[in-house]
Amino acid sequence: MNSAGAARSLTGEKLAQAAELARETGLDVWLVFVRETANGGDPALPLILSPSLTWQSALLVTPGGRRVAIVGSYDAEPVRASGEWTEVIPYVEGIREPLLEALEDLVPSDRAAPRIGVNFSASDDKADGLTHGLYLLLAEYLRGSRFEGSLESAEPLVVALRGRKTTAEVERMRHAIAATDALFEELAAFVRVGMTEREIFEFLHLRIREKGLGFAWEPSQDPIVNSGPDSMIGHGLPSEVIQVSPGHLLHVDLGVTWKDYSSDLQRCWYVPDGQDAMPRDLQQALEAVTGAISAGAAALRPGVAGWEVDSAARRFLQEAGYPEYLHALGHQVGRKAHDGGGILGPRWERYGQTPLLPVEKGQVFTLELGAQVEGRGYLGLEEMVLVTETGCEWLSSRQLSLPALTFA
Amino acid sequence: MNSAGAARSLTGEKLAQAAELARETGLDVWLVFVRETANGGDPALPLILSPSLTWQSALLVTPGGRRVAIVGSYDAEPVRASGEWTEVIPYVEGIREPLLEALEDLVPSDRAAPRIGVNFSASDDKADGLTHGLYLLLAEYLRGSRFEGSLESAEPLVVALRGRKTTAEVERMRHAIAATDALFEELAAFVRVGMTEREIFEFLHLRIREKGLGFAWEPSQDPIVNSGPDSMIGHGLPSEVIQVSPGHLLHVDLGVTWKDYSSDLQRCWYVPDGQDAMPRDLQQALEAVTGAISAGAAALRPGVAGWEVDSAARRFLQEAGYPEYLHALGHQVGRKAHDGGGILGPRWERYGQTPLLPVEKGQVFTLELGAQVEGRGYLGLEEMVLVTETGCEWLSSRQLSLPALTFA
Repeated sequence: MNSAGAARSLTGEKLAQAAELARETGLDVWLVFVRETANGGDPALPLILSPSLTWQSALLVTPGGRRVAIVGSYDAEPVRASGEWTEVIPYVEGIREPLLEALEDLVPSDRAAPRIGVNFSASDDKADGLTHGLYLLLAEYLRGSRFEGSLESAEPLVVALRGRKTTAEVERMRHAIAATDALFEELAAFVRVGMTEREIFEFLHLRIREKGLGFAWEPSQDPIVNSGPDSMIGHGLPSEVIQVSPGHLLHVDLGVTWKDYSSDLQRCWYVPDGQDAMPRDLQQALEAVTGAISAGAAALRPGVAGWEVDSAARRFLQEAGYPEYLHALGHQVGRKAHDGGGILGPRWERYGQTPLLPVEKGQVFTLELGAQVEGRGYLGLEEMVLVTETGCEWLSSRQLSLPALTFA
Repeated sequence: MNSAGAARSLTGEKLAQAAELARETGLDVWLVFVRETANGGDPALPLILSPSLTWQSALLVTPGGRRVAIVGSYDAEPVRASGEWTEVIPYVEGIREPLLEALEDLVPSDRAAPRIGVNFSASDDKADGLTHGLYLLLAEYLRGSRFEGSLESAEPLVVALRGRKTTAEVERMRHAIAATDALFEELAAFVRVGMTEREIFEFLHLRIREKGLGFAWEPSQDPIVNSGPDSMIGHGLPSEVIQVSPGHLLHVDLGVTWKDYSSDLQRCWYVPDGQDAMPRDLQQALEAVTGAISAGAAALRPGVAGWEVDSAARRFLQEAGYPEYLHALGHQVGRKAHDGGGILGPRWERYGQTPLLPVEKGQVFTLELGAQVEGRGYLGLEEMVLVTETGCEWLSSRQLSLPALTFA
């Protein structure tokens, strides 16, 4: 890859955005400190670098747009090859010395209290990629230098960097959503009375692999398949016993990745029991669930706090006579199905500060909730939306009716 | 799965081992604190639990063998279904209260200074699964209780838990190694003069997927393929330009997973240039490299420090007239190709304390090193060994000669 004249890559776009965000948040440098990233590691790293890094590595971005990568000697070539780092500094024995030299170089010497942002956060796991051991190590490296005590949380930068999607990122998610819709269609044609949840799960697994798609979360729990009232709702495993049966609601929660970007959608079908008309209890639940999702979407726009959007949907569902859902209305989606940052959720302890964050243009959210229908199963739907200047745009084709499965 | 009378699962074996190690290390409780584990998370978690966990979750193991899982309500069923937790405590709004209650219950009330081990480590990334944000959160939850200030590093427990392989774990690695050997054979039959590194890479990728194997590290860098003297050694990407040519050394570093356990092997071939005999420079390099690996293996036994083993191999190679390698002789292998814990490496800053740890029975190591041969390429080999009571056992079939590729 050559940087001169070439179209900017996705990681190049995000690096430019990171420099802007360093300016916006007033950091002197954003420091991503990692090791052995092939085994996972900091969720912020793939936004700015594709190759994995083995030894302790420091990636530094300044408000002025300098991008310095200090990496083990064996990792230097792939990082250089990306063409996106202004300096690549390889080392062999230890990173402390080149790291201190780079910081000296990047942070103006007259800065009284340098601000180095690193990736930790109590409330947002996607902004919390720095392990406690690496934090201690980094603090030790800086001890005695003018950077001692200057580490702070880069959460505001990381949250915005993940949240504000570029056009290229949204485009990839549109592909992932279209692929998910196609899988739902295949599923509806495949299902027969008597099939187990496990068989439906296996079918979708096979098709996802055959199509070269990825799984948006742990494959053993993707998709979640629930048929009827006795199924395990939530993050359960598909049952090898429970069979699709007349009168059941069939509920599927499925997410795939396309070029590293995710979809996350829930769809429902009704398994007819010989009656012609749609049962009234299902029709009522459908109206409550879709109405609550609409109420959430209507409240969603830049500047509003996430909990207010959740509250609009939650109130609608309860006023329709259904119990409140025990989760958030929506989470952000991106490289991960749960992409971190602000959520559209209630102000519960476990959500920390995330429901208080203001919604921003360019964020992609799910809108998801459901109702248990006695004797039939779980009617849960999940859509995806993009926050626009004035409101939101549906990325998914909404499910507004409850199709009855047909068995040719 | 039913615990009564059923054969113990691999996670069940490791949980029993964890309780023993809590006794051995004197901890009152080992606490694995995680969230959103489908996106990676603590590398110690998969040893003891298969399903992923979404909300903040606490997994507690005591020296007495109690195993308590405090998880979000939606995650409770799959954890219960594993049959391996003595108590599963679901929560909805926040984990602080049930966590404090469980600790009260598990840690004798007369303990003056309770010892709660959590997963952080400056020198071992596999024992460093707790993020800095989660550490701060946990410390905050314990504030004001009798457990305030009682968090300590569980590194000794985690390192031993990963390192001391059970029979079932070694068995899975034997399968992964056999699968890797088979791939090397296919490769040797496939290669032709004029092929690029990238073509060889693509072939192995396809075969790995077709066989239903996993990649032992980042797929874009697995396998590493190097042909000839101009190739990028280390963690480079395969070249689309460099072609297999007469006189080249072809070097491949490949690792696959079989049921979550890894192999990691390097093999070399000579591309004949029309001469009958093996060139003398290659024969010399081969003897130096295999001799150095043998010297390392001869020094490897329980109780010896990792750096001493590295030193035996390093000295052999240098005395044979080749420069020392700029990495460790060996790392542990398990669920990850780089499985953490003690290494067989020099006492360099970036290796921290890991070369000082004593070798233990049941550990699986690589033995890997190489020499650059001018005008020909890189002659690097990597084997895998299991530490026994008195020495080590070869898990891989050693490469002791340098086969010339034949082109039918």
